[in-house]
Amino acid sequence: MTKYVYSFGDGFAEGKVDMKNLLGGKGANLAEMCSLGLPVPPGFTITTEVCTGYYANGKALPKGLDTEVKKALAAVEKAVGCTFGDAKNPLLVSVRSGARASMPGMMDTVLNLGLNDITVEGLAAKTGNPRFAYDSYRRFIQMYSDVVLGVDHYHFEEELEAIKLNKAYELDTQLNADDLKLLVEKYKNKVTDELRNRFPNGTVEQSTFPQDVHIQLWGAINAVFDSWMNARAITYRRLHDIPEGWGTAVNVQSMVFGNMGDDCATGVAFTRNPSTGDKAFYGEFLVNAQGEDVVAGIRTPQPLTIAGKATSGADLLSMEEVMPGVYGDLVKIYQKLEHHYRDMQDIEFTVQNRKLWMLQTRSGKRTAAASIKIAVDMVAEKLISKEVAIGRVDPAALDQLLHPTLDPNAKKTVLARGLPASPGAACGIVVFSADVAEERAHHKEKVILVRIETSPEDIHGMHAAQGILTARGGMTSHAAVVARGMGKPCVSGAGEVKIDYAAKTFKAGNQTVKEGDFVTINGSSGEVFLGEVPTIQPQLSGDFAMLMGWADELRTLKIRTNAETPLDATTARKFGAEGIGLCRTEHMFFDVDRITPMREMIVSDTPEKRKLALAKLLPMQRKDFADIFRIMTGLPVTIRLLDPPLHEFLPHGEAEIKEVAKAAGVTVEYVKARAHALHESNPMLGHRGCRLGVTYPEIYEMQARAIFEAASEVIKATKEKVIPEIMIPLVMNEKELEMMKRVVDETAAAVARETSVKVDYLVGTMIELPRAALRAGDIARHAEFFSFGTNDLTQTTLGLSRDDAASFIEIYKQKGVLESDPFVTIDTQGVGELIEIAAERGRKSRPDIKLGICGEHGGDPASIHFCQKAGLNYVSCSPYRVPVARLAAAQAAIKAKTAKAEAA
Amino acid sequence: MTKYVYSFGDGFAEGKVDMKNLLGGKGANLAEMCSLGLPVPPGFTITTEVCTGYYANGKALPKGLDTEVKKALAAVEKAVGCTFGDAKNPLLVSVRSGARASMPGMMDTVLNLGLNDITVEGLAAKTGNPRFAYDSYRRFIQMYSDVVLGVDHYHFEEELEAIKLNKAYELDTQLNADDLKLLVEKYKNKVTDELRNRFPNGTVEQSTFPQDVHIQLWGAINAVFDSWMNARAITYRRLHDIPEGWGTAVNVQSMVFGNMGDDCATGVAFTRNPSTGDKAFYGEFLVNAQGEDVVAGIRTPQPLTIAGKATSGADLLSMEEVMPGVYGDLVKIYQKLEHHYRDMQDIEFTVQNRKLWMLQTRSGKRTAAASIKIAVDMVAEKLISKEVAIGRVDPAALDQLLHPTLDPNAKKTVLARGLPASPGAACGIVVFSADVAEERAHHKEKVILVRIETSPEDIHGMHAAQGILTARGGMTSHAAVVARGMGKPCVSGAGEVKIDYAAKTFKAGNQTVKEGDFVTINGSSGEVFLGEVPTIQPQLSGDFAMLMGWADELRTLKIRTNAETPLDATTARKFGAEGIGLCRTEHMFFDVDRITPMREMIVSDTPEKRKLALAKLLPMQRKDFADIFRIMTGLPVTIRLLDPPLHEFLPHGEAEIKEVAKAAGVTVEYVKARAHALHESNPMLGHRGCRLGVTYPEIYEMQARAIFEAASEVIKATKEKVIPEIMIPLVMNEKELEMMKRVVDETAAAVARETSVKVDYLVGTMIELPRAALRAGDIARHAEFFSFGTNDLTQTTLGLSRDDAASFIEIYKQKGVLESDPFVTIDTQGVGELIEIAAERGRKSRPDIKLGICGEHGGDPASIHFCQKAGLNYVSCSPYRVPVARLAAAQAAIKAKTAKAEAA
Repeated sequence: MTKYVYSFGDGFAEGKVDMKNLLGGKGANLAEMCSLGLPVPPGFTITTEVCTGYYANGKALPKGLDTEVKKALAAVEKAVGCTFGDAKNPLLVSVRSGARASMPGMMDTVLNLGLNDITVEGLAAKTGNPRFAYDSYRRFIQMYSDVVLGVDHYHFEEELEAIKLNKAYELDTQLNADDLKLLVEKYKNKVTDELRNRFPNGTVEQSTFPQDVHIQLWGAINAVFDSWMNARAITYRRLHDIPEGWGTAVNVQSMVFGNMGDDCATGVAFTRNPSTGDKAFYGEFLVNAQGEDVVAGIRTPQPLTIAGKATSGADLLSMEEVMPGVYGDLVKIYQKLEHHYRDMQDIEFTVQNRKLWMLQTRSGKRTAAASIKIAVDMVAEKLISKEVAIGRVDPAALDQLLHPTLDPNAKKTVLARGLPASPGAACGIVVFSADVAEERAHHKEKVILVRIETSPEDIHGMHAAQGILTARGGMTSHAAVVARGMGKPCVSGAGEVKIDYAAKTFKAGNQTVKEGDFVTINGSSGEVFLGEVPTIQPQLSGDFAMLMGWADELRTLKIRTNAETPLDATTARKFGAEGIGLCRTEHMFFDVDRITPMREMIVSDTPEKRKLALAKLLPMQRKDFADIFRIMTGLPVTIRLLDPPLHEFLPHGEAEIKEVAKAAGVTVEYVKARAHALHESNPMLGHRGCRLGVTYPEIYEMQARAIFEAASEVIKATKEKVIPEIMIPLVMNEKELEMMKRVVDETAAAVARETSVKVDYLVGTMIELPRAALRAGDIARHAEFFSFGTNDLTQTTLGLSRDDAASFIEIYKQKGVLESDPFVTIDTQGVGELIEIAAERGRKSRPDIKLGICGEHGGDPASIHFCQKAGLNYVSCSPYRVPVARLAAAQAAIKAKTAKAEAA
Repeated sequence: MTKYVYSFGDGFAEGKVDMKNLLGGKGANLAEMCSLGLPVPPGFTITTEVCTGYYANGKALPKGLDTEVKKALAAVEKAVGCTFGDAKNPLLVSVRSGARASMPGMMDTVLNLGLNDITVEGLAAKTGNPRFAYDSYRRFIQMYSDVVLGVDHYHFEEELEAIKLNKAYELDTQLNADDLKLLVEKYKNKVTDELRNRFPNGTVEQSTFPQDVHIQLWGAINAVFDSWMNARAITYRRLHDIPEGWGTAVNVQSMVFGNMGDDCATGVAFTRNPSTGDKAFYGEFLVNAQGEDVVAGIRTPQPLTIAGKATSGADLLSMEEVMPGVYGDLVKIYQKLEHHYRDMQDIEFTVQNRKLWMLQTRSGKRTAAASIKIAVDMVAEKLISKEVAIGRVDPAALDQLLHPTLDPNAKKTVLARGLPASPGAACGIVVFSADVAEERAHHKEKVILVRIETSPEDIHGMHAAQGILTARGGMTSHAAVVARGMGKPCVSGAGEVKIDYAAKTFKAGNQTVKEGDFVTINGSSGEVFLGEVPTIQPQLSGDFAMLMGWADELRTLKIRTNAETPLDATTARKFGAEGIGLCRTEHMFFDVDRITPMREMIVSDTPEKRKLALAKLLPMQRKDFADIFRIMTGLPVTIRLLDPPLHEFLPHGEAEIKEVAKAAGVTVEYVKARAHALHESNPMLGHRGCRLGVTYPEIYEMQARAIFEAASEVIKATKEKVIPEIMIPLVMNEKELEMMKRVVDETAAAVARETSVKVDYLVGTMIELPRAALRAGDIARHAEFFSFGTNDLTQTTLGLSRDDAASFIEIYKQKGVLESDPFVTIDTQGVGELIEIAAERGRKSRPDIKLGICGEHGGDPASIHFCQKAGLNYVSCSPYRVPVARLAAAQAAIKAKTAKAEAA
């Protein structure tokens, strides 16, 4: 029989940390902390399998669940010494979601459950604190009604405001027990009104706030399962590639209270600094508060440590000072946890009457820089191996380290200062709502989302923004946590920033900034600047270099780069590229001094005229290649011959047409007619790639000549090795390649005779059409290498134009038709199978054939894992992606080794 | 050691009829005739392998060939009793090409080889006919110089004209022996002049007409091999899909002379009528002429038989009357040949001094009608089996039988009458040159090519024309033979037609017809009409029905049709379609009363607005489907839901935009903006197919509702079975199909509730993307059938847009990169492998899945053979292609059965 419920508490747990898939992250870690003997309020976890069954069976809970819950609840009652629903000594519980992967704030929670008109009196008597009891009750009614009954929270806020107005109170804390008692009555009446409106013919039960604590409990459990499919959660999963099929667990746990007085507190902490990775205990707490108060960022919290207080410049006392005893307990626990998990932990705790309770531990989210520092430090501390260290760093997150930072010498106008909530610099126009952020980002504008504070409803806008600036909230506020997760710069709690949403402006000091004005934020320092601040290249050394060195030792895939300018080639070599995997020659023709001869060539209607125009391009191409060969000496340089449809080069407008006509010695009408003739319905599937070379061999001949003349020149000048690898694009059968290879080989021989320099070179092809993949066996007879052009291969295999897919691909992801954008992460089942077929057939006919990929996927970690599995020799990616690829390749190699070891 | 030369003659031959690949058609059949004991001038064949070796080795002939030729030549000398180059008793030979497939007139021939200044005297003395000897010599010099030495024939014609002018002769026959002797001298001098011009520093040998008969022989052999690669031959091969790799054989054969006097003759004959298939010996001959004279159509030939004379209305005497004895021999021989080959033969013969010599026999080209009649007759005569009969008819040629013929009751103005050279009616504008024909046909004009006579240089124009009209030439003239081969109507030898090429007009009686005027020709009757004559549908019965009946018995593939109009559906059902394989719903939206609601739907930006517009389209679609269901009761009707990119329906021009804006209740600017937003770079790979259904499910819902409401209506009204098969296009993964199937199933259930009629239906998908083929196993879980959309599958697999490929696909075919147009004949190696993969994976996951194809390839015989091999259940093609497909399917089934039997 399937077990649905796992109990924990009192130094014992049925679950373990490696049961995350079943118990969710929170549940598994609560169980683990219990087993470690840490103080955890007793409770139980309902498994994620119940959630998936719930959705598979039309939202029905399984038979037998109620019995198991009853049993587990009894165990909690026994451990705590209270009884659920008891009039004198009532047990209160929290009901929380907990998925396999953390989805902060996306799903629902109910606290203080178990209170009703009778138990509230018991709680008041037991604690001797009626104010606390009624405050808890009114909070519970509001939360439960919102989450379970669907009665919006503003209804309750209205009642609260009304009482405050009536009594002339300014703060909630001024309400006394009687006020709260009255408020509870008003809340309950409000619920009844709302429910009667909704079910005019309903029973009394249907329109009353439930007094039966068991009805409360099941209502909350169902609500948490339901919240797995709310819009926020769906969006979050889509953005973070979390499968819908995972489901969430439900954790029911006895309540502890941080809000019972000044010897109570609640806090969150990281065992190391999540921004920098520094080995320093780091966190915040609030005295006399409930946990949600810290996360929501409504009150500015106090630092945990004296050191932390100094760093942040806060003037509030630290926990180390305020509650030194409890603080000492916390330090012992965090050290135990970090040592046990061998990773930086993100913990939540509550202090109830000076007694410390642990509510959560999990692997802490961290910036890329922190992840590197922590990984490298932990290797030095002998906590983890190099392999584990490499696995700890998300390659995609490296991106934020590789991009420019603010120039420290630039002139800057500081507008305001806040907390350095997520590092990195970002610049963009100010927008004040998530929707506007998304809208303007869609139009290719860079935006900074400026909010008083953010909430889960703002996720899409944060995703669209370059960076986030909030006026309120701490380092663990919603904005800060989410921004760090996304790798976006964030400055939070910049109190000087006074936002007027209606006017779409904010003021900082005497400066007014309007929507659309540029600002720059530095999430590493917490500074906000007016306008666009210039940036400088990052220095990559220390921990980064150490980690990359380990990665290079472990990986088996070579990493090349896609580059066609000297700047790109230089950058890539600096980032560790081991050659150029794709040098696109067409980009070289758009320069102002080249486009005219290029156009002259296109409008020519005989090989002779084309040759005249090509002769003008030859010296320019030769120089292009010579420059790149000089930068890449000793490393292979894969040059793709002309690929795009000719019409991309066509002149636009009368002036350009006239210029081309003049240069080519033809009429304007002729140029227009030729441009018209070259128009294509589906240029992606048109007269391009080697089809140009087959129909106009003189083009490829000129390019081959430029390559070999440049190679000879550089070899002569530098005495170093130059290794051109010439790549024929868009081949669909072996004849095309055979013909084009002959053009290259003949040109190479001719140049060798002329220059007396022998250049070692390879000729290969792109595999970017399904037919080429299928016929790889024939094609390999003429190809010394294959480079999988996964952009085009994705377009043709899926019948999907990258330029046109935007109109529906988001809907496809939302509806679950596509799990991820196939232009970002390789479609392993379709495109991937073709690559595997081609690799197998290609190797069968030419065992030493070199295989690589050069689409955008070359820099995508998931795709790199696929390339490792498919047995490719290298991946090629954009220069800034080279370190990402090096790390991902190391992770892939480690995974492959582990898999092999496990299989053996 | 490879044998290069095969001898024949004197009742014995080294070759056999089944050695066509090695000896070419002509060589194999000459050998076979020898073995049958027929009178064949002795000779030998140099194999096609020598030709392929010749090209592989830079035009070098193999070692040892000369020894074999010498030996074979000696055998001929012995058999004939003459010696090659002998002064008294010289052997003369012909040197002719002969490929595996007949390529009439495309390659070079040299006759009378072996004549020189000495042997000509020997020939004169031996025959007692100096005029004949010198006429033969001057013909030889002209032909040899043209073919081997590259001295154009007009040089010689000038000399001939000069003598005729000088002597005031009108006809060539007026030249006497002395005139011809003089002409020979002038011809030789002309050759010397031309060669000296070409090789100013050449030796005497290089600038003299060769007197050494062995040099003559090797010159001619090389020239024939060279002619395999001349432009005409290359074009012909491309048009007829003859591989370049086949090569040609060379036949060297002792000369016999049909031009030695009035007891000599030459002729060609068909053992049955090649136009009608009637069992009647049929042919033409010319007294005192060489073979080329008949084929060239310069003199109008005489009929062979008295019956033939009566039919054609000729007033020349028949061979049966003029040479009854020889005619008797010919009848015995033709009967023997037909019985031996069990097929209608096309024979060539020469009569030299009342002795009959057979120069060629081959399977005769025939019209589609004739091929059917001959096949059916031969089954009745027990000459061949039904299976062989079916194999004898070229399915592609059926096309000409299925198309309309001239309405016999239409008013017609007869311009002229000629010979009924190739049946069928054709109408078009008059053009006078092959180039103009091609040019105007390229601009979608229908043209009739009008020529005094045609030559191999006109092939491309004949190909481009709807029909051919010649003023000169018989039933076996170049125009007639080629037109029949192409299945194009032709009227030849219309003597009344007086053509003025310079003025671009022709006169017939008192009527002048200009280039660009319309004429109609009836190739079945020989009539030429002014203007466009109306046509009627053909009646298909008798032999055709008999043959198709046999085909239906033998085939295993079902044949469906692509149809979306009642007319198409009716036509297809009449032609034997067993259901509709593709009903494209989008074509239904272009009607004038539908395009506006369709556009209204497209510009709508909410589901609600779209539903309003779709509600207007629903009743129209329902009627469309009801009409088709009524026609196809009892047969399956596969309906494809909306497929093309929406922008195809967008309004063009202000008026249309305004109309749509008004109908949709939006602004003109809005419609323009929406049209702009819908523009796509590569619409073929864009927002189309089921992507429309996934993003706007209401479209497919409306279509499904129209289908089920229509089906219910027709079932109620007719009490007959209606079988809709609903097809979801452009699926790339199973989720898309699953979602769209749900829309269809839910709509079906809803309509069933409303109408109380249960409709049996299937839901399936197009497999038209490589990914869909690869993931066929998953997709089949939701698909009750697959229809391979080979148009799109070809586009994506080859990365080739059908709309754009025209600019280079011809070059690709010319350069041998593609053997055939992949949009006409399925690319079995690429697209074919994907179909095989999909069939296998689809069947594995759903063993009873129905598989078919519905691209243009469904009507292409070669592709149908592939479908049989791939194990599909049906093919679907355009209505007029249904009989073609039925026949091709039978041939494929026979082939498969034979292959299976051979394997067992």
